[in-house]
Amino acid sequence: MGTDKRKLREICRIAARVFFEKGYDGASMQDIAGAVGLTKAGLYHHVGSKDRLLFEIMNYGMDILRETVIERVKSIADPRERLRQTIVGHIDLIVRARDLELTVVLHENRSLKGALRRKIDARKKEYIQMLEDMIAQVQREGGEPLMSPRLAAFALLGMVNWLYQWYRPEGPIKEPELARNYVDFFFRGLLGEA
Amino acid sequence: MGTDKRKLREICRIAARVFFEKGYDGASMQDIAGAVGLTKAGLYHHVGSKDRLLFEIMNYGMDILRETVIERVKSIADPRERLRQTIVGHIDLIVRARDLELTVVLHENRSLKGALRRKIDARKKEYIQMLEDMIAQVQREGGEPLMSPRLAAFALLGMVNWLYQWYRPEGPIKEPELARNYVDFFFRGLLGEA
Repeated sequence: MGTDKRKLREICRIAARVFFEKGYDGASMQDIAGAVGLTKAGLYHHVGSKDRLLFEIMNYGMDILRETVIERVKSIADPRERLRQTIVGHIDLIVRARDLELTVVLHENRSLKGALRRKIDARKKEYIQMLEDMIAQVQREGGEPLMSPRLAAFALLGMVNWLYQWYRPEGPIKEPELARNYVDFFFRGLLGEA
Repeated sequence: MGTDKRKLREICRIAARVFFEKGYDGASMQDIAGAVGLTKAGLYHHVGSKDRLLFEIMNYGMDILRETVIERVKSIADPRERLRQTIVGHIDLIVRARDLELTVVLHENRSLKGALRRKIDARKKEYIQMLEDMIAQVQREGGEPLMSPRLAAFALLGMVNWLYQWYRPEGPIKEPELARNYVDFFFRGLLGEA
C-alpha cells in the first residue's frame, strides 16, 4: 500500500470517529483536521472536500468488507461452508471495536448525495447480490426453497448489521457463541432444519 | 388527547422529518420552527430545548409502538399467535411511510445524552424484555430451546428494524408477503420447524 493510501485510511479512521461522535453535519473540517493533526489546508489537500471525505470513509468500509470477508471465502468450494464463513466474517467485522465507527458511518448514509452516493450504493448492491447467489446455491442443495434469496439476504443483513446497536464484546455473550447461534438460526430459518 | 399533546405530536412529526433530512446537529431550532409554522420563541414554549425535542420525538416513537403493537397483542392468549402478531405489527410500523422519520430518529440515538437518553433506553429495554418473555413462552411449548430468548429477540429486532434501510412499499414485495416470509423465517430459526 502506498504512503498516500495509508495516510488516507488513517484520516478516514479518525474522521469516522469524529462523525460518529458529532454527526456529519455537526462536525467541521476544522474539528477533523485537529483530530488528525493536520492544518485545515492539509486536510483539504488529502481529501478534497467534506463530501468526498465521507465518501472515502464509506468506500474504506466497503474495502474492509472485501478484504476481510469476500476475498477470504472466494476459494471455498462447498456452498454451505462459504455462506457460513461469510456470516462469521461479517459478524466479526461489525463487532470488532476498531471498525465500529466506520461501519456506523457506512450505514447512516443519508448525508452522502449524488454520484458519490450512487457509487457506494453500487458496492453495497454487489455484496447483496453475492449473498443472494450464495443463498440460492445453498437452497438448491436443500430441495424446494422456502423463501426468496433476496428476502433471506436482507433478513441476514438486518440481523448482522443491527449488532452495532446492542452487542458489546465485554458483555456476557462472547463472539464465537454469538456467531454460532446466528449461523444456526439463519440456516434453520432458510432451510427449516433443526 | 388534549390540545397540547396533539400539538406536541404534530411538532414531533415535522421535527423528525427535519432531523431526518439535515441530521440532528445540522438542523437548527429556526429550521424546525419554520417547518412547523411557529416562531422560534413559540417552538421553545412547546418543547423547552432542542435536546428535549429530540427526546419527545423518540418518546412519541415508543408511544406509537405501545399503542399500535403492544396494546393490541396483550389480550391474545396463544403465545405463538401473540408473537406472530407482534412481529406483523412491528413490521407494519417500520414500513408505514408516515412513521419512517420517527423510527429512524428513534434508532439513530447517539445525539441524545444523559437522563433523557436513559429514559428512552429504559423504554426500549422494556420492549425487548417483553419480546424475550414471549419467545421463551413459545420455546417452552416446542421442547428443548435451540437458542437463548435474548439472542432470538435481537435477531428479530435486527431483521425488522433494518427494513427502513432497504424496503420500499412501492417495490415488488408487498407488505403481507414480507410479513409472512419474515414470520415464517423467524419461527423456523427459533424452533427448527419447516
